[in-house]
Amino acid sequence: MTTTESGATAPSENGTQSTQHATHGYHKQKDEHLKRLRRIEGQIRGLQRMVDEDVYCIDILTQVSASTKALQSFALQLLEEHLRHCVADAALRGGDEIDAKVDEATKAIARMLRT
Amino acid sequence: MTTTESGATAPSENGTQSTQHATHGYHKQKDEHLKRLRRIEGQIRGLQRMVDEDVYCIDILTQVSASTKALQSFALQLLEEHLRHCVADAALRGGDEIDAKVDEATKAIARMLRT
Amino acid sequence: MTTTESGATAPSENGTQSTQHATHGYHKQKDEHLKRLRRIEGQIRGLQRMVDEDVYCIDILTQVSASTKALQSFALQLLEEHLRHCVADAALRGGDEIDAKVDEATKAIARMLRT
Amino acid sequence: MTTTESGATAPSENGTQSTQHATHGYHKQKDEHLKRLRRIEGQIRGLQRMVDEDVYCIDILTQVSASTKALQSFALQLLEEHLRHCVADAALRGGDEIDAKVDEATKAIARMLRT
Repeated sequence: MTTTESGATAPSENGTQSTQHATHGYHKQKDEHLKRLRRIEGQIRGLQRMVDEDVYCIDILTQVSASTKALQSFALQLLEEHLRHCVADAALRGGDEIDAKVDEATKAIARMLRT
Repeated sequence: MTTTESGATAPSENGTQSTQHATHGYHKQKDEHLKRLRRIEGQIRGLQRMVDEDVYCIDILTQVSASTKALQSFALQLLEEHLRHCVADAALRGGDEIDAKVDEATKAIARMLRT
Repeated sequence: MTTTESGATAPSENGTQSTQHATHGYHKQKDEHLKRLRRIEGQIRGLQRMVDEDVYCIDILTQVSASTKALQSFALQLLEEHLRHCVADAALRGGDEIDAKVDEATKAIARMLRT
Repeated sequence: MTTTESGATAPSENGTQSTQHATHGYHKQKDEHLKRLRRIEGQIRGLQRMVDEDVYCIDILTQVSASTKALQSFALQLLEEHLRHCVADAALRGGDEIDAKVDEATKAIARMLRT
């Protein structure tokens, strides 16, 4: 679906980022991310089938928890790449940028915690 | 997509449950549940587009949090109906069943908390 | 562990229950609850020592997570007893009370999820 | 209780860190952290009083959620300082250290999410 661009600029799976996306830490893992998200989409469709077939509520709740966990796990992966690339780059560039980046990342973590 | 059964047996949106599903509290709200889940499915596809278009990590994380929140909110709705119908019914039937139902519901809540 | 229902006797550390609180499901487990809470209080004091001694941030965060988990676990125990006693009693009494009780319990679970 | 050391080395509230604690980002906010933790300790003791006085379960759960929220908020503050200082410092020192630091921070965030 989406590999053309990263394929062209990144010959190896962990190849270098294209310059225009230098601050997007998740770029290299794009295919892995899309695979994860398609799996989660499948889980959500599975939930629709369960509701449609009047599956027992508790079993649906178990599947909802699995989907939520998968989303949280995706978010953690994204966050790790963001810290490794964007936040670390900001530190190297010096100045106030690191404060803004850390503030932004912390707010994102707070939103993850409150859902 | 799926309304045939409830459409046939439940002329009004909050119509009567079919007898074979008497213990499934979420039955009456089936259409609302399916609508919620389709919206969440749309959010997950939106996430795929964002990853595909190299959207900034933090903006993706914000959307992940919104999807997680929507899933949790769906789970709470399901749980509320379960408590109102299945758990309350078990109480009325007497015997040990209420213990089993409460134990089961508590475990489901624990899974929701740990995701 | 709880036996004699601390009711008649209870000259102990944890005082007598007044009869008008008969519907408070957590009563029998009172001693266990107080023991759990004292352990959590100890964890919080441990955190103060860690901060005071400049312990490494990540190690403090690990201890914060342990305390949060202990609080959640206490809340789940309380909730289970509440469902088993208060919610089930409301079902037996009939009328609208079960709706109010379930609504109230669901809101409490929502608060637990959002912290 | 504990301000002697930081008082001596940090004349202003946001003064420079003493060198022996250079990697401990939370050092400067020590007093604020201790104040927060003492407040949480007070909340936990309040919970013990509530249990002891047979307060209604749902009201106790509300207070548990407030304490959990306060702990999460403390953890976020600690994490923000950790990212701003330890993780940023690792980026500046270069080499593999940033990977180890980001990995460690991500694991801590995962623990926060799963409690």
